[in-house]
Amino acid sequence: MPLSEYTLRRRVMFHETDSAGIVHFSNYFRYMEEAEHALWRAAGISVASRGANVGLPRVSAAFDYHRPLQFEDEFDARIRIVSMREKSMRYVCVFTKGDEKIATGRVTVVCVSKDQDGVMRARPFPPDIASRFEVSAEAEAEA
Amino acid sequence: MPLSEYTLRRRVMFHETDSAGIVHFSNYFRYMEEAEHALWRAAGISVASRGANVGLPRVSAAFDYHRPLQFEDEFDARIRIVSMREKSMRYVCVFTKGDEKIATGRVTVVCVSKDQDGVMRARPFPPDIASRFEVSAEAEAEA
Amino acid sequence: MPLSEYTLRRRVMFHETDSAGIVHFSNYFRYMEEAEHALWRAAGISVASRGANVGLPRVSAAFDYHRPLQFEDEFDARIRIVSMREKSMRYVCVFTKGDEKIATGRVTVVCVSKDQDGVMRARPFPPDIASRFEVSAEAEAEA
Amino acid sequence: MPLSEYTLRRRVMFHETDSAGIVHFSNYFRYMEEAEHALWRAAGISVASRGANVGLPRVSAAFDYHRPLQFEDEFDARIRIVSMREKSMRYVCVFTKGDEKIATGRVTVVCVSKDQDGVMRARPFPPDIASRFEVSAEAEAEA
Repeated sequence: MPLSEYTLRRRVMFHETDSAGIVHFSNYFRYMEEAEHALWRAAGISVASRGANVGLPRVSAAFDYHRPLQFEDEFDARIRIVSMREKSMRYVCVFTKGDEKIATGRVTVVCVSKDQDGVMRARPFPPDIASRFEVSAEAEAEA
Repeated sequence: MPLSEYTLRRRVMFHETDSAGIVHFSNYFRYMEEAEHALWRAAGISVASRGANVGLPRVSAAFDYHRPLQFEDEFDARIRIVSMREKSMRYVCVFTKGDEKIATGRVTVVCVSKDQDGVMRARPFPPDIASRFEVSAEAEAEA
Repeated sequence: MPLSEYTLRRRVMFHETDSAGIVHFSNYFRYMEEAEHALWRAAGISVASRGANVGLPRVSAAFDYHRPLQFEDEFDARIRIVSMREKSMRYVCVFTKGDEKIATGRVTVVCVSKDQDGVMRARPFPPDIASRFEVSAEAEAEA
Repeated sequence: MPLSEYTLRRRVMFHETDSAGIVHFSNYFRYMEEAEHALWRAAGISVASRGANVGLPRVSAAFDYHRPLQFEDEFDARIRIVSMREKSMRYVCVFTKGDEKIATGRVTVVCVSKDQDGVMRARPFPPDIASRFEVSAEAEAEA
């Protein structure tokens, strides 16, 4: 059955904080990507072994920061597929710590492969990838 | 004279790349912050010594990625102030490598200080900070 | 009962790899610290809440690298206390992936606190910390 | 003329600090590698373009930490070749901030290439690399 979301529980590591005493804002993008890859693993496909000729570069990425995270905080990163097209997909990822909303991220990735002259070009997701994912019902309701 | 922009020349370090052979997308946010801090230093004020009681957390940050960067690439990160309000400022940061446009970033920061019960609250920029910066003419023309 | 070791199971994240296609060697030191902090949590004490006036800076840290780790590899980081003195402790941390030995790390940390003029000085571990740890029997046998 | 050392001036970036208010100890290894790559560029050879079939994995790496570095500190990382053999080289890298000695690092790298079955094996440095470097006179005097 195709998957549309995944919730990753994560603890803040010391090396992810900065001298303001909170998680550096750039690390939220890493957490979001970790949730994305956990979703792919849950769907039965490793991003690592997706084949040498398919890449998933980011087209855009953004975060709105609501509250800080500190060293050893545990939080949930819930990532959902909000759009799935022939050659690209979009995710929304909400971080929460208990009842508190911490941050909201968005990322768009495109499926590419290298053509014969070594240039990356957008291409349709291979069927074995596309068939494993679907847009979350929530996203459809919102649309 | 107040400053409104700064261009940082930067070379890609090996530890900033990932196994796709390009700079990991999260590092663009670090490069943008480096350009921001270089702008502050050029304005005669170190972000480090801005006083224990003023912080500059990020409210939102975003990047559009146009082309990848690879190990040892040299690029320019030109950051401009596009909005300056009592308690917040917004930057746009364009990365270029020679004639190629690499990426466009946006970040909004808010000025905060800790009140007596230890809670961070938005506050006006101190005059010694506010007086050193102004919105770029380009941004005003665009508005 | 005092603890002397901990084994952390960890998966390699994409942002931890470099363009040689393997985990960047600097990240091994982060993994080792993650195992150390997991050991402290298992001993019932959060490194984060150890009190504002006790710090644990590193005096030295080293790794011998035997085999590379790649994206999505799962490995174990087994950290053991090999020496515990009044003001310092030493760990050895061995990474394995299945039967393969990946790397061996060593780190020495010292207990410090800030005195009245703000200078960090070595000090004995507080009893509440010291009582929770002991040197591993294996290390004693090796000595 | 073969090179034996290089001094990199570097400023501490915000994202390199941790919530203890100092540079995270793992970043010293990144600084040392930046100095190593700057030495290679000064010798007229980019590590990036050293050819697809030569790699320089680390065999071991270590640091002794003498004093902390803080955000925006400027320091020098002076790297010297202390041993150069057919298939490996060793560096020592000393960090100083003004008159203060900050840290001393050591790293051993080995030259490898992939053989036909995809396994990495140690191999002699290609002559075009070996001819550009030599052991520092200081190291020879110490030996």
